[in-house]
Amino acid sequence: MTFKGKLLSAAAANKSWLCIGLDPDPAKMPSTLSRDIGGIEIFLKSIIDSTSDLVCAYKPNSAFFEIYGGPGIELLKRVIEYIPDNIPVILDAKRADIGNTSRMYARAAFDYLGADAITVNPYLGHDSLKPFLDYADKGIIILCVTSNPSSADFQKQTLGKNPADHIMLYEKVASLACQWNANNNVGLVVGATSPAELAAVRKLVGDEIPILIPGVGAQGGELQNALSAGSNGAGKLAIINVSRSVIYASSRDDYGAKARESAQLLIEQIRAVLSSK
Amino acid sequence: MTFKGKLLSAAAANKSWLCIGLDPDPAKMPSTLSRDIGGIEIFLKSIIDSTSDLVCAYKPNSAFFEIYGGPGIELLKRVIEYIPDNIPVILDAKRADIGNTSRMYARAAFDYLGADAITVNPYLGHDSLKPFLDYADKGIIILCVTSNPSSADFQKQTLGKNPADHIMLYEKVASLACQWNANNNVGLVVGATSPAELAAVRKLVGDEIPILIPGVGAQGGELQNALSAGSNGAGKLAIINVSRSVIYASSRDDYGAKARESAQLLIEQIRAVLSSK
Repeated sequence: MTFKGKLLSAAAANKSWLCIGLDPDPAKMPSTLSRDIGGIEIFLKSIIDSTSDLVCAYKPNSAFFEIYGGPGIELLKRVIEYIPDNIPVILDAKRADIGNTSRMYARAAFDYLGADAITVNPYLGHDSLKPFLDYADKGIIILCVTSNPSSADFQKQTLGKNPADHIMLYEKVASLACQWNANNNVGLVVGATSPAELAAVRKLVGDEIPILIPGVGAQGGELQNALSAGSNGAGKLAIINVSRSVIYASSRDDYGAKARESAQLLIEQIRAVLSSK
Repeated sequence: MTFKGKLLSAAAANKSWLCIGLDPDPAKMPSTLSRDIGGIEIFLKSIIDSTSDLVCAYKPNSAFFEIYGGPGIELLKRVIEYIPDNIPVILDAKRADIGNTSRMYARAAFDYLGADAITVNPYLGHDSLKPFLDYADKGIIILCVTSNPSSADFQKQTLGKNPADHIMLYEKVASLACQWNANNNVGLVVGATSPAELAAVRKLVGDEIPILIPGVGAQGGELQNALSAGSNGAGKLAIINVSRSVIYASSRDDYGAKARESAQLLIEQIRAVLSSK
């Protein structure tokens, strides 16, 4: 099944647009677990066991595994394998390089690690993303507006020599992403910290493109704005990613149960917003 | 020693601004070697043995190791360790993420793998690069103008609402990179395929910032233009990267000797250009 098909099925089955970010920060691990590969494996598998009926996707971030070198990458592979087959896995890796090299990154993410989707960086342009896009069954989720404060440095700069043509860089990314969507496998990243830009991007790309939305904190307000602005006309395809506030909901032995409680609170909020849409 | 100090020392000792890209493409390996981790390790160590007195740096590209998963990352670590201490290692990884996550990428590159420098992608802005920049002894080489055809998609777009303020996106990257250079550890990537932009960037950033220049083919003309445009007033800090044409100079048993011959031809050309500058 394609990434998008799997995403829509999981969202329908679990009545959820919540994606849980699997970012095993050694400094934040529950105190009852060892802060090594073994402890992290127990931790992440417990989080998955406790939440896999509540999510539309999981999003492990490669960086948090890379700090452990080769054994960390093998752990990442095992975690991806452990996630139930009906839940898509978005590898958050923000990769891109010249075409020949991007082909290797795509092989690593899809053929070796077995991810269903990957996040990629648009700065190098179309030919740097094509080797990813050519994997028609995989999701290629392009950074558009990121959730960090410095996203304004470049992404929110105005482009265009003539005032009539003025658009922001992130709008140019969104617009080209639509042109690169021949395989119906493109997605975009737009942070919940930029709700106006999120609404603009959803309007620009129409109803078919999934938008991955990081940056939602504990605040329900942000979540509501993000969902309203990011979902399509049918209240779908706004993937709300939450990492730390769910997986580190408790630093004690009850981390699995507390992660589940946090996730349940979030999907109740998500359902309330979407049912009123 | 800092990356920049090591780079200047190696360039002076070897009278060379040649950097060899270590991109072990399994499809291009010498036919006498096995196309697995073991074969690649023999191959890359032979290339290093044959060329380490001819280069100012080596640049392994992470993607070509990531296709082998965890064992590939361990191979990358061994290759970096094998490179003589006096030659700086630039990890070509084109990383960047939000701050918290970039910190993990920096740890992976510098603390785990032991690289002296890393290439990073500017799209997420300053706070995404700060965790790298905070490693004062390491080189942080920011993508500016890449060597692929699609670099025009975004990098060569004109920014600025008022005609008087018009600059290209890559110029904005170069200009902010100078502001981010408090630790004197910033570099830029500008492809040899964009000689006019390379000259513009060198003029903009002054004499202190190293420019890593990929995209030089077998053609001496491109090399000459790249060196003239990219080096500073003292004929330094233009790092000419060549990968495939050196490391795959022969597909037979003599690959080490042929790589050396190719590298020697290149540094003779480099010395000729720089001595006339």
